[in-house]
Amino acid sequence: MKITIIGGGSTYTPELVKGLIDNRDAFGLEELALQDIRPERQEAVASFCRRLMEKEKASFSLTTATDRKTALNRADFVIIQIRVGGQEARNRDIRIGLDNSLIGQETTGIGGFAKALRTLPKVLEICSDVVQYCPNAWVINFTNPSGLITEGIIKATGVQTIGLCNIPYTFKKELAGVFSVEPRDIELDYVGLNHLSWVRKVMVHGKDRLPELLEMADSSSDILPEELDYPVAFLKILKAIPSGYLRYYYDTSRLLAELKSSPKTRAQTVMEIEKELFEKYNDPGVIEIPEALSKRGGAGYSEAALGLIDSLVNNKREIHVVNVQNNNSIQGLPEDSVVEIPCLVNSYGAHPLDAGDVNPHQLALMQHVKAYELLTVQAVMEGSREKALLALITNPLGPEASKALTILDDIIKSNQLDFLH
Amino acid sequence: MKITIIGGGSTYTPELVKGLIDNRDAFGLEELALQDIRPERQEAVASFCRRLMEKEKASFSLTTATDRKTALNRADFVIIQIRVGGQEARNRDIRIGLDNSLIGQETTGIGGFAKALRTLPKVLEICSDVVQYCPNAWVINFTNPSGLITEGIIKATGVQTIGLCNIPYTFKKELAGVFSVEPRDIELDYVGLNHLSWVRKVMVHGKDRLPELLEMADSSSDILPEELDYPVAFLKILKAIPSGYLRYYYDTSRLLAELKSSPKTRAQTVMEIEKELFEKYNDPGVIEIPEALSKRGGAGYSEAALGLIDSLVNNKREIHVVNVQNNNSIQGLPEDSVVEIPCLVNSYGAHPLDAGDVNPHQLALMQHVKAYELLTVQAVMEGSREKALLALITNPLGPEASKALTILDDIIKSNQLDFLH
Amino acid sequence: MKITIIGGGSTYTPELVKGLIDNRDAFGLEELALQDIRPERQEAVASFCRRLMEKEKASFSLTTATDRKTALNRADFVIIQIRVGGQEARNRDIRIGLDNSLIGQETTGIGGFAKALRTLPKVLEICSDVVQYCPNAWVINFTNPSGLITEGIIKATGVQTIGLCNIPYTFKKELAGVFSVEPRDIELDYVGLNHLSWVRKVMVHGKDRLPELLEMADSSSDILPEELDYPVAFLKILKAIPSGYLRYYYDTSRLLAELKSSPKTRAQTVMEIEKELFEKYNDPGVIEIPEALSKRGGAGYSEAALGLIDSLVNNKREIHVVNVQNNNSIQGLPEDSVVEIPCLVNSYGAHPLDAGDVNPHQLALMQHVKAYELLTVQAVMEGSREKALLALITNPLGPEASKALTILDDIIKSNQLDFLH
Amino acid sequence: MKITIIGGGSTYTPELVKGLIDNRDAFGLEELALQDIRPERQEAVASFCRRLMEKEKASFSLTTATDRKTALNRADFVIIQIRVGGQEARNRDIRIGLDNSLIGQETTGIGGFAKALRTLPKVLEICSDVVQYCPNAWVINFTNPSGLITEGIIKATGVQTIGLCNIPYTFKKELAGVFSVEPRDIELDYVGLNHLSWVRKVMVHGKDRLPELLEMADSSSDILPEELDYPVAFLKILKAIPSGYLRYYYDTSRLLAELKSSPKTRAQTVMEIEKELFEKYNDPGVIEIPEALSKRGGAGYSEAALGLIDSLVNNKREIHVVNVQNNNSIQGLPEDSVVEIPCLVNSYGAHPLDAGDVNPHQLALMQHVKAYELLTVQAVMEGSREKALLALITNPLGPEASKALTILDDIIKSNQLDFLH
Repeated sequence: MKITIIGGGSTYTPELVKGLIDNRDAFGLEELALQDIRPERQEAVASFCRRLMEKEKASFSLTTATDRKTALNRADFVIIQIRVGGQEARNRDIRIGLDNSLIGQETTGIGGFAKALRTLPKVLEICSDVVQYCPNAWVINFTNPSGLITEGIIKATGVQTIGLCNIPYTFKKELAGVFSVEPRDIELDYVGLNHLSWVRKVMVHGKDRLPELLEMADSSSDILPEELDYPVAFLKILKAIPSGYLRYYYDTSRLLAELKSSPKTRAQTVMEIEKELFEKYNDPGVIEIPEALSKRGGAGYSEAALGLIDSLVNNKREIHVVNVQNNNSIQGLPEDSVVEIPCLVNSYGAHPLDAGDVNPHQLALMQHVKAYELLTVQAVMEGSREKALLALITNPLGPEASKALTILDDIIKSNQLDFLH
Repeated sequence: MKITIIGGGSTYTPELVKGLIDNRDAFGLEELALQDIRPERQEAVASFCRRLMEKEKASFSLTTATDRKTALNRADFVIIQIRVGGQEARNRDIRIGLDNSLIGQETTGIGGFAKALRTLPKVLEICSDVVQYCPNAWVINFTNPSGLITEGIIKATGVQTIGLCNIPYTFKKELAGVFSVEPRDIELDYVGLNHLSWVRKVMVHGKDRLPELLEMADSSSDILPEELDYPVAFLKILKAIPSGYLRYYYDTSRLLAELKSSPKTRAQTVMEIEKELFEKYNDPGVIEIPEALSKRGGAGYSEAALGLIDSLVNNKREIHVVNVQNNNSIQGLPEDSVVEIPCLVNSYGAHPLDAGDVNPHQLALMQHVKAYELLTVQAVMEGSREKALLALITNPLGPEASKALTILDDIIKSNQLDFLH
Repeated sequence: MKITIIGGGSTYTPELVKGLIDNRDAFGLEELALQDIRPERQEAVASFCRRLMEKEKASFSLTTATDRKTALNRADFVIIQIRVGGQEARNRDIRIGLDNSLIGQETTGIGGFAKALRTLPKVLEICSDVVQYCPNAWVINFTNPSGLITEGIIKATGVQTIGLCNIPYTFKKELAGVFSVEPRDIELDYVGLNHLSWVRKVMVHGKDRLPELLEMADSSSDILPEELDYPVAFLKILKAIPSGYLRYYYDTSRLLAELKSSPKTRAQTVMEIEKELFEKYNDPGVIEIPEALSKRGGAGYSEAALGLIDSLVNNKREIHVVNVQNNNSIQGLPEDSVVEIPCLVNSYGAHPLDAGDVNPHQLALMQHVKAYELLTVQAVMEGSREKALLALITNPLGPEASKALTILDDIIKSNQLDFLH
Repeated sequence: MKITIIGGGSTYTPELVKGLIDNRDAFGLEELALQDIRPERQEAVASFCRRLMEKEKASFSLTTATDRKTALNRADFVIIQIRVGGQEARNRDIRIGLDNSLIGQETTGIGGFAKALRTLPKVLEICSDVVQYCPNAWVINFTNPSGLITEGIIKATGVQTIGLCNIPYTFKKELAGVFSVEPRDIELDYVGLNHLSWVRKVMVHGKDRLPELLEMADSSSDILPEELDYPVAFLKILKAIPSGYLRYYYDTSRLLAELKSSPKTRAQTVMEIEKELFEKYNDPGVIEIPEALSKRGGAGYSEAALGLIDSLVNNKREIHVVNVQNNNSIQGLPEDSVVEIPCLVNSYGAHPLDAGDVNPHQLALMQHVKAYELLTVQAVMEGSREKALLALITNPLGPEASKALTILDDIIKSNQLDFLH
């Protein structure tokens, strides 16, 4: 059993290694292979991970490579978590957004669009190596925008892929605290696309406790996670709890104003956090996950990934909320497009459960954003600047058509997207 | 054969009467019944129409009523063309829009929303009388927002209804001029919802001349009608000519700026035109359609309506672009929702032709706007303020969710929509 | 917790009681209520059940009633297992079949059709009492033809219903023996309608062992259950194991010949078995399930029912093969029609898993038989003799149209189906 | 303008030539090219056609070839009307049917199956030449089983094809006689597959006169064409008039008995008719279409074909009942499979009209037969004997599965279908 991490130099990697150590017996891991194109980052991460492994007497080996083929060879699972262009590119996206009074966040708005355009070609190259060096591996994609990148992998390659985001698992865990039960006692009636999702029921031991949760949230601001700071009256009308990322749609101007008035961009903040993390990773005396990692985002990322792998390897038949092809679970979206939805996961894959009736408001937003995603994938696959323009004007947080061409040119130039013509 | 016009006091009515006179032999009209709740307007219109009829020796009679039941009794066709609240209400909608930097146009944005909320209940009352007094009549709906109102009639009643807009026919007629053929030699590959539509092919004698048309438009600004002032480069990317009303989506800020800087609203301009028209209608010496009517909008309205009636009465099997239930013509929209699409019209109805593949950009916009329309219809049918709020935040030209409640309250108050609770 | 059995006087009842005793802690049963319109049969069954309960010190009470309302009052589960007209009616169906060289088996061919026509009206009466006396109860239907009756309940009432058949569970149990694993280690990729189904994969610990199973069956006739006596060459072409009942379609003339040459009908044999069983049930010395019950058919019936109830009550999220509405699991069948399919069962119901691609041969047979079932349900709901005739000629094992009217008249007369007109 | 007939030596050809002469001005025909692999038959036909042309002063030329490529070169229309194996093969099919008490008719039952297996490969070869030598030509397929062969062409090639059968047009013409109107005044609400179809409404000047027609048929046996000899009581229950070929399904045993007791097979009769026809065609004195041609079947074939070509060439927008891909016209059948349905025919193709609600009985039969057709096409395309077996057991008039292998072997052997393995 071999797990390969593409983008092994990510500051997140140690959390995953910690999880693998803690669950050592679950799926007989023999080798964890890290691959990154930036060797200095990867070595810092790997040396810290090796200290963790030694301390806990881990039974698997850790290897590193800059060469992708070595790392992929005979892998059973490939985790892709790359960031093309680094935080610098992210920062540029945010800036282009602010210059045009548009959302440049790394997964939504024109930021997600720019990131997808520069990222998907690289991910498809990786998948092409997967086909050659480990064709039976499961690819787990964490690379943002996670849903769109997963859509691209599935549309453009034959690789078996599941897109993953830490949000559904983290929310479940927080609800487990609220209701004093274990996460496994909770089932979320969850529907949406990645970062465009709603929790419609919170089944605790088989009983929907969403109404009760909303009453509790009405009396105390500590009930719902900070990023879900919606007025409870609005949630009662929606009859659902939207993802934190939906605030970019529901409260656009306030979030734009916050971005504008913030002294640093999120990219700049993350650069500082990463600087601090790498100092710790490089310090031979540090043998605990640094506190600073919790500020990096991505809480629960390790647990979500390992739970999914466990259910796949051990045919556990658990329900996980993941990004897979819709089949017929959400009526009104194409069967072959990727949605984020509860799936029964057994050893032959993740099988989406039927979403039942979907509110027209939610469905319309999903349809609109999915069309943007599909056009973006087509733009990359065909190298088509025209499709990229159609994608951009289809993004509900994108510019009006009359301004789109200028913005697209900025994005192309700033990211050197020469393949678009 | 009896045709009834609900909203007979409309300044448009004489154009229709002129058409009926000119086509006197086409479908054996015996009685044209006008009904309006404002007798003074209706009498002015009727007296002018009678002068037209006398001059041309029309063979049918013209009756007027304020009582709806008399007018509807045994009608074969019922044309609904009402304006609830008059131009004053329209003016208020535009103002609420401008106060919130939103589009308050009478068919799109929050203007269309407000108009639908105050209009649909009245139209449903009319249709309830149709069921009782002329259950086999065809209802032809011109009342704006025409697609949404037609959707409401079909969802809420059993009345057989076709929604009509003058735009498709007028565009065809203008193209006939460009290509020096008759309108009947042209078939539009047309797809969309009312006021949210695209012409994808211009078939002249069975050959698509859209590419040629775009080339011509590139060299001369006189080719396309004034309201279609899109950059030709953009049309070439779209591979289609969008409706003029799509500028509210494609060029929102410019249109908003124009509205803001305009000394008069469209409602105020129309009030002045109507004042002039009624002076003419009331002048016994005027026996020609006044020039001013051409400024009123709605060109081709009479021809579109009479062509449709002719095909229904005489089983003509012509193709008309009208608003009917989708069935399966546009994949990705609900089968039972209303779309604006080419239909084969024979004596048993208007049968939509298959729309083939639809561009994701176009489909997404249709899906989004249709969801808004369906939620608006539900809000009216259920008297639900919550559904009205969902409708408002689902309108792509509506406010962000965080501001929607205040705007909805303004609309409810200014229109006295007490049925919403 | 109260379970009510409608048709409590069935000779099967003791098996269910035995299961309830053995699983006493699983779902806190307090009362088991039997109801039957034939008190003498029910008292014999109940007295034997009470001896079983006493011997094993069961903690729940057993009540009996002829009045349905008493029995249903506040039930949590209602098991319907009635036989309208008894074995005598079954015998008549077989005879009408033989007279016309047609299959008169109690679930397929014209036998299933006749049984459905006389049974569904009674089942709908029962469900109407369920709505009144225990509206939140789950109805588990065992009454044959089980799929068609479940379809009828769902189409005609608002009762939440799951149709159950012992076949899928029993086959899984037999396969567990073949592969020396527990039934829970096996998942069947199962698709079909009740008594018209195919097993397409036999997943043992997540690996498909159907090809291996067919190889084994090729060398030994002991591998597959007796009723699945298909040539292995045929199974290899089908790439699936069809239900035993499909032999009525695949080997019609042989089965008809066997029926014709058999000295006794199955109805007559069952009458004899039941006579023997009632003697035992009435004998105060008998405190073990009689051997003869195993000849009665329906093996595993108790385990299948109790496993399902357990998963519903305790939110177990197990996979059970049951009869529920299709939703979108089998593409090509109506979303709202009942299929027999693997479902994830939790405390809010049984949720069908996606069936993926279905072979055109299998789909066509399902579509044809489902159309027959729907027409039969419509015939009962509308009291329509015309619909009954359409149903009969749509049944692939029914008569050709030119002979259908005579046969329908025989069935109506022999079953006094006066509601058909 | 060039029309090519593949199978030009057919005895039907002169009827088509007569039609082309009569409609000389309709579509500017310049060359009619005949191609046949049996030159002696083709020359006899061509010499007779030339006499017809000379007599009527036809303005187009007639060419003949045995080489397909010459005949196809730059054709605008290609009519395919071949009979692989001649009447001898047809006779063998009927015999294999009779030996097994099965229908061996050339389009239905195992006769249609055998004919499809030997014919489709040849038709696909022809279409492959079409792609090369006249890629923009319309292929009009008359080759039986017409629906299945058209399905095969569309599934296996990119050729634009319309399948045609004389039945819908002929029935319309007969009804025109009954109601004393022109065929163009009648629209049939027609649904089905080729030779498996129902007329559900007979719209005369836009009014459904089917009920009246059935009343007339009740009093007089002369109303409906001879081949529609159904009991009127049955038609009233169906609320439709089924195709004559549906008698093979509705009255199987009577038709089988007739076939068995008939001294000659239809193939033998046709051989005699053709002998007589060729004598006339070879007789220089004969310059009129021989009376014997009316006994050959296929009445109206010429009018149906020429009407279709006229509507395509001249963008007539007429409604023709033809075999094309379903799109979404009949819900419940695959979108890409071929159905026989009213289509709007303009210069860019034949566009199916929505079929509305379809009776479950009719839909089930179509679904079942369509699955058989698709499996037959797959068998040919994949050269798969297994798929051929699945096709055979899926044919509702085919053998039960237990007997299918023997019959398939007979068919393979008697037709030398070596490509199946």
